Amino acid sequence: MKVAVIGAQGRMGTAMSAGVQATEGLDLVASLDAGDEITVGSLNGAEAAIEFTRPDSTVANVLALIDAGVHCVVGTTGWTGESLDLVKEKLEQNPSIGVLIAPNYALSAVLAMVFAKKAAAYFESAEVIELHHPGKVDAPSGTALTTAQHIAQARREAGLGEMPDATETDPHGARGAVIEGVHVHAVRLRGLTAHEEVVFGNPGEQLTIRTDSFDRESFFPGVLLGLREVGKRPGLTYGLDQLMEL
Amino acid sequence: MKVAVIGAQGRMGTAMSAGVQATEGLDLVASLDAGDEITVGSLNGAEAAIEFTRPDSTVANVLALIDAGVHCVVGTTGWTGESLDLVKEKLEQNPSIGVLIAPNYALSAVLAMVFAKKAAAYFESAEVIELHHPGKVDAPSGTALTTAQHIAQARREAGLGEMPDATETDPHGARGAVIEGVHVHAVRLRGLTAHEEVVFGNPGEQLTIRTDSFDRESFFPGVLLGLREVGKRPGLTYGLDQLMEL
Amino acid sequence: MKVAVIGAQGRMGTAMSAGVQATEGLDLVASLDAGDEITVGSLNGAEAAIEFTRPDSTVANVLALIDAGVHCVVGTTGWTGESLDLVKEKLEQNPSIGVLIAPNYALSAVLAMVFAKKAAAYFESAEVIELHHPGKVDAPSGTALTTAQHIAQARREAGLGEMPDATETDPHGARGAVIEGVHVHAVRLRGLTAHEEVVFGNPGEQLTIRTDSFDRESFFPGVLLGLREVGKRPGLTYGLDQLMEL
Amino acid sequence: MKVAVIGAQGRMGTAMSAGVQATEGLDLVASLDAGDEITVGSLNGAEAAIEFTRPDSTVANVLALIDAGVHCVVGTTGWTGESLDLVKEKLEQNPSIGVLIAPNYALSAVLAMVFAKKAAAYFESAEVIELHHPGKVDAPSGTALTTAQHIAQARREAGLGEMPDATETDPHGARGAVIEGVHVHAVRLRGLTAHEEVVFGNPGEQLTIRTDSFDRESFFPGVLLGLREVGKRPGLTYGLDQLMEL
Repeated sequence: MKVAVIGAQGRMGTAMSAGVQATEGLDLVASLDAGDEITVGSLNGAEAAIEFTRPDSTVANVLALIDAGVHCVVGTTGWTGESLDLVKEKLEQNPSIGVLIAPNYALSAVLAMVFAKKAAAYFESAEVIELHHPGKVDAPSGTALTTAQHIAQARREAGLGEMPDATETDPHGARGAVIEGVHVHAVRLRGLTAHEEVVFGNPGEQLTIRTDSFDRESFFPGVLLGLREVGKRPGLTYGLDQLMEL
Repeated sequence: MKVAVIGAQGRMGTAMSAGVQATEGLDLVASLDAGDEITVGSLNGAEAAIEFTRPDSTVANVLALIDAGVHCVVGTTGWTGESLDLVKEKLEQNPSIGVLIAPNYALSAVLAMVFAKKAAAYFESAEVIELHHPGKVDAPSGTALTTAQHIAQARREAGLGEMPDATETDPHGARGAVIEGVHVHAVRLRGLTAHEEVVFGNPGEQLTIRTDSFDRESFFPGVLLGLREVGKRPGLTYGLDQLMEL
Repeated sequence: MKVAVIGAQGRMGTAMSAGVQATEGLDLVASLDAGDEITVGSLNGAEAAIEFTRPDSTVANVLALIDAGVHCVVGTTGWTGESLDLVKEKLEQNPSIGVLIAPNYALSAVLAMVFAKKAAAYFESAEVIELHHPGKVDAPSGTALTTAQHIAQARREAGLGEMPDATETDPHGARGAVIEGVHVHAVRLRGLTAHEEVVFGNPGEQLTIRTDSFDRESFFPGVLLGLREVGKRPGLTYGLDQLMEL
Repeated sequence: MKVAVIGAQGRMGTAMSAGVQATEGLDLVASLDAGDEITVGSLNGAEAAIEFTRPDSTVANVLALIDAGVHCVVGTTGWTGESLDLVKEKLEQNPSIGVLIAPNYALSAVLAMVFAKKAAAYFESAEVIELHHPGKVDAPSGTALTTAQHIAQARREAGLGEMPDATETDPHGARGAVIEGVHVHAVRLRGLTAHEEVVFGNPGEQLTIRTDSFDRESFFPGVLLGLREVGKRPGLTYGLDQLMEL
């Protein structure tokens, strides 16, 4: 498969280019970045493109890729309902093209989220602990926030009430954030990258689902899965889990 | 719901009786054990029965319960294809009765197995570590063996080859058991009960699924799920995961 | 060794009595509880006593035990500088008697505290996560609070400054409690008992020290160590770690 | 402090040079590699040197550094009693010089080893699990082997007997390696670097000591500690733990 990388000079683009070049059966035919036009010519015969750029350029890039008849695997964040609609409209005019947009390409993180959501209906208690490098400016992480929301939703759908918690005094806020009833804890530690642990408890038992991301190369296996599937699924697919048999 | 416990004097039966009595909406109407006949009379109006006895008595008990028109949640192990067929035949004559037979009622263990099987197709590496109390006579645990076999099967179905492993020298056998290509490690430690950790690895990322069983009361939530569902599912259901939305 | 248990009817006393009876070389010669006088006669030849009662009775019990010429291993909490002074005075009059008073007899918890204090000087980052059953009324646990204070003190003594932390937004308090600059997180989960994890980080590396207490029988090995050592150490010893070669 | 790096072109040397340059108070004045002579001149005023080369060159390098009056922090492995003796003899002639030779500079790994040795006397059970990248050719790791030997020695010194283990059947070798009575398990997983977990168990409790090395930059904090201390300790110091207050 002939592949283009859009955003090739960025940190993610560099990692993606290395992944493409190291994978048998993939051929890197175009490396484009800010300032390069995305056209049939510049794409140099690419059948699919990996797009990791910036929120303010990704929409235009994806529309141009669809126009050029190239399937897209998009890792740039910042998509809204409105911008996704623009992609859907463009895809209606190009019904053979597939576009995959996903907020996370780390397979372990995607699976942890899906499994946490499935498990949530079956336990009295559930909490989320996320651990990141100390350079992170926001707490909790967006992933932990989403995980907690999914757990809360699954509990509501299963008719579960509040979790048991006899805490009467917590003068320093040790119980952490409460997101729709789910406690979320954020650890910041030199040496770490991005990690999340979801713990579930019932009388006499615990289930733990943990995902560790050590390096941005962890995104490539998910992108590769996307490249292999996106051409078989015309239209817009949102979320890597939609391509997985879960 | 009126509930009978068969094997009421055993360790599991005692825990199950306590669980029934502590649960709103359940009424313990019969406690039978070895020597007690299982009849409409002795079951005292029970709508469903929990059966935790021994491999050599469970088949006869379940057949008698079906004859008595009572749904069954069966935790005794040792079922074979042949003995399951006897139950199926009996159920054909009693088409409104539901029987659930499951090798494990700990929800965390059941979920860990299901999730491990789902995840296995997406990672280069997978290994199983089980940890138990030092009184256990067999290694690895039956659950770890089954987990490894499920991982191996999922890898074959996904077309994955052998896992990467450059080991050249291992004079003491530190790499553990190899079950259909999956390494399994057994730890025995005073203080532990029954625990299993499944680790999956890709470049730059790890997924860990861990289940801890601290106490036999951990089986009751799964049995309770069985009690609530078994009457809605006439015929034989094998495995608690069949009742869960996974 | 002939042993007395004071507070023999309580939950801890019951566990301690069982421990004494199961240990070769120990002989349970007296079981006293509220209402029983502590005298040479009632102690029935005991050489050492295990005292697990209540804060309002422990001081009088220990003074009576010293008067009776019996070494003491004391697990009751609530000791103050003032009440410890009373014991020291009494011991000056009975210079052959040893008394051990300790806030925690779980060896893993004692070691985790000591190790955390030793490690703290060598890492840029350190945080404490404690996990308990959901019936606990205070957060964080007293042990986690003490652990954080020890870490903070070790960092000050080593001349370490503030830990790296770029957090700018944390609207829900996910970063948890801050005890003398050390973040402490409290998880409450059905199925758990008492657990603490201390994580330390430097560039490229992490050290984790975790202690799990599953059951109150976990206190007996520490009490046993106390029984064996207390007679060799006349006077007051505070803290089980003082008896350990660390 | 003026610092020289010997083996500056190697992977470790490159990481060490980066560490020196990023540390306030250190000045990288010489970068030497194979082919460069080690002399007062080439060392360019260095007060201390970091030596990470190869087993067949390290002895000559260290002797030359001592001759040049420079303190040494040595990370190259392969030292024997004989080669250490050569260094000691040379140091007798240069009594103001300090040399630190250590098999491991990762602080978390050094601490984990020390703590494991201290804890070993207090638990009925202890096992070692090491986890590494799948490119590692030997199992178990040298660190795990040493950890197990230290645990075994501490148990013997404490008069502890065999660990409890009722295993009767283990047809596939799941119980792993047995090193002086201590079970050692080796996991190989894509995505991992170098990790070790030591688990200790008593009735009702568990202590876990885990060290994770994610990156070779993890060696720099230990080397930095060495640089700061080596000048204060004339003669040969073996092992980073000798510089730590443990």
